Amino acid sequence: MKRIRVCDLATYYDKEIEISGFIDNIRNLQWVAFIILRDETGKVQITIEKSEEANKELIEIVNNLTIDSTVKITGKVLEAPKVKLNGMEIIPSKITVTSKSLEELPFNYKDLANVNLDTRLDYRFIDLRNEQNAMIFRIQSTLVRYMREYLYNHDFVEIHTPKFIGAASESGADVFEVKYFDRIAYLAQSPQFYKQMAMASGFGNFFEVAPCFRAENSNTSRHATEFTSFDVEFSYINDFYDVMNLEAEMLTYALEKTSEIYKDKIKDLFKIDLEVPKLPFPIMKLADVYKELEERYGYKVAAIEKTDLTTEAEKLCYKLAKDKFNHEFLFVTDYPADKRAFYHMRDENGRLLGYDLIWRGVEITTGAQREHRYEKIVAAAKEKGLGEDVKFYLDFFKYGCPPHGGFGIGIDRLTMLLLGIPSVKETQFLFRGPNRLNP
Amino acid sequence: MKRIRVCDLATYYDKEIEISGFIDNIRNLQWVAFIILRDETGKVQITIEKSEEANKELIEIVNNLTIDSTVKITGKVLEAPKVKLNGMEIIPSKITVTSKSLEELPFNYKDLANVNLDTRLDYRFIDLRNEQNAMIFRIQSTLVRYMREYLYNHDFVEIHTPKFIGAASESGADVFEVKYFDRIAYLAQSPQFYKQMAMASGFGNFFEVAPCFRAENSNTSRHATEFTSFDVEFSYINDFYDVMNLEAEMLTYALEKTSEIYKDKIKDLFKIDLEVPKLPFPIMKLADVYKELEERYGYKVAAIEKTDLTTEAEKLCYKLAKDKFNHEFLFVTDYPADKRAFYHMRDENGRLLGYDLIWRGVEITTGAQREHRYEKIVAAAKEKGLGEDVKFYLDFFKYGCPPHGGFGIGIDRLTMLLLGIPSVKETQFLFRGPNRLNP
Repeated sequence: MKRIRVCDLATYYDKEIEISGFIDNIRNLQWVAFIILRDETGKVQITIEKSEEANKELIEIVNNLTIDSTVKITGKVLEAPKVKLNGMEIIPSKITVTSKSLEELPFNYKDLANVNLDTRLDYRFIDLRNEQNAMIFRIQSTLVRYMREYLYNHDFVEIHTPKFIGAASESGADVFEVKYFDRIAYLAQSPQFYKQMAMASGFGNFFEVAPCFRAENSNTSRHATEFTSFDVEFSYINDFYDVMNLEAEMLTYALEKTSEIYKDKIKDLFKIDLEVPKLPFPIMKLADVYKELEERYGYKVAAIEKTDLTTEAEKLCYKLAKDKFNHEFLFVTDYPADKRAFYHMRDENGRLLGYDLIWRGVEITTGAQREHRYEKIVAAAKEKGLGEDVKFYLDFFKYGCPPHGGFGIGIDRLTMLLLGIPSVKETQFLFRGPNRLNP
Repeated sequence: MKRIRVCDLATYYDKEIEISGFIDNIRNLQWVAFIILRDETGKVQITIEKSEEANKELIEIVNNLTIDSTVKITGKVLEAPKVKLNGMEIIPSKITVTSKSLEELPFNYKDLANVNLDTRLDYRFIDLRNEQNAMIFRIQSTLVRYMREYLYNHDFVEIHTPKFIGAASESGADVFEVKYFDRIAYLAQSPQFYKQMAMASGFGNFFEVAPCFRAENSNTSRHATEFTSFDVEFSYINDFYDVMNLEAEMLTYALEKTSEIYKDKIKDLFKIDLEVPKLPFPIMKLADVYKELEERYGYKVAAIEKTDLTTEAEKLCYKLAKDKFNHEFLFVTDYPADKRAFYHMRDENGRLLGYDLIWRGVEITTGAQREHRYEKIVAAAKEKGLGEDVKFYLDFFKYGCPPHGGFGIGIDRLTMLLLGIPSVKETQFLFRGPNRLNP
């Protein structure tokens, strides 16, 4: 018999069905026992009349049942308007205990308000039984599904680039070392060099969704030693506005689809109004952002800080984008060129042809047109003091390479912002930080 | 102006368009110059009449053009039945060289027959300009897209599990060590433990597409130190036949979709007839496979070898599946239980409730029902001598965990078989082996 999920039960009234799930609750009364069964789609009440002779065996099972055990139940689904939970109940003819919860749980996952985050992460497999926590990952999966779908619809190819790299090239400081037989390998901090290689090979449109590794010994709400990056790169762009447009369109498409499915759930569980953004997204120059933050909100900061957005300025960008453009997103351009990676293109006046995207006051992307001209990229690398380690990368541009650009989005951070969750520790299935490698 | 791709040109006859790509070839004759431009979708001829005064500037550009440079061309598309290539040509009004190929290429990527594989891999970014090589990754992307789509349609959630693990748990020998601040971390050989954790958390249906790392110092056509694994796990199964059915359905769905798009290309470029498999896939017990291989083809092997399929037996399974079932796939079951991972379930008679899937004579999956009962999994781990390192994993089963099963498929290997390519070295974007970390 095929398992029916709780969300589909209403189409089986008066039919014999099979259902499986966790025991969410048990009320074992004198004349009747109520079990609440929970699967990944919802909860349903199982009703067992104790007066019925035929139920003797079932009652025996219920008497020994523990909450969080898993069961398989055969029975009839009945419409039951008096039952608050979905207005239905199942009258079982058979209950099989498929696994027994043997110990009291370390904490009550239905009410995590007073449970320490570290305890929750120690027992993450219990923590994720919480409805809201599980929903984070269903929504993340849907969001990424439709980001992918947008790209497939635009003829992007998903490519898997290696995480082992031969040289600590992009920036040596924060890279993890691996014992690789009788030598050292490194873990890729991003697929940057390899997604550009795909451009040199002529792939045209590239994307990848894969882990990135950063040996940053910092403990903030936004940082992890490992995170999942959604990386996009594409050729034959006219300028970096093409990159911004594609990113805005992709996010809008994915948020619209996610909203269609989850708007109510997100409102209900996370108290967040999911607005589908309007195209185009607003764009401001960094200097203008600081000017307006001061004019509008009296936010002042020393000139030396204005080479990047301060965390506070980033936060205020949410208000600014709302007040000025009635938008949640803000592209910020014209960062000082010398503060950015050497592979970002500059124009003939030294202007950086890249951007950051701020959503709800947090930076979610850095994107840019890349330098694809051999002499220029060689000069840019030299200026940063990068030598032999990036030679393999510079070679990509020696034999022709189309103009291209791209961006990367950390999906853990994106999910954090989407659902108003305070930290990526809760939007990673299993968070990894300097002090956390378990479970 | 928006770039038009070569494949879309026929809808723009007599219109002014913009096109971009690599210079595939140049024929600079006395009265006329022909350029062949190539983008990721095809090739087209650009014709420049030298007698036209207005073309003076264009001729100057063509005289300095090198093959493999990239250009952006504005011009008119004309129907030209005499032009062998697509029966069309572009009469340009403007040519912009967007990047120049500065040196002679290390080899001719259009004819790789006599180029050593190691040289090709050293210059992989050139090697991938080869039409067939690039097509490998377009087809792989499509295949994986539709494997995913099948799972999305069946309410699977895509989850990203960590690659950093705290203990070398699954099998200590082949695991990579990472210097993780002041301690050692390890790289996950598979998401096995974490996909099962998702089952204990109640996710129901899980999948992940991510790199796996194996420190195997071996050089075969099938092995790499890093590969992309497509991992599936789901709950509330009745037995391991549910797992086999899902895998067969998913592969059939993805192969059917891939065939719709690429059947002709695959035939043309790889000389492979892509047959969409019929459901259900045939199933045989390991002992019966050996019996039939001997009876049908005289293949004899010592009893001691019969605990697994030998490489030769695996190869012969292609013939056996064809001859006996007219099928390319073969599920093999009833492997000796003691040769398999401790988390595979055994029935009360000690029979292993798992399988391998053989496609065209190569094993592509190991799948199984998993042991989800706490006492049994603890005993199985103990029997294998696994102690403290797997305690965190064993804990997943202490508080209730539904019956579940799953499988993993290496997509590099799958692509290798799909296209009849001799080695995963050519179906990984950048192969990684004990002696290869570059580029």
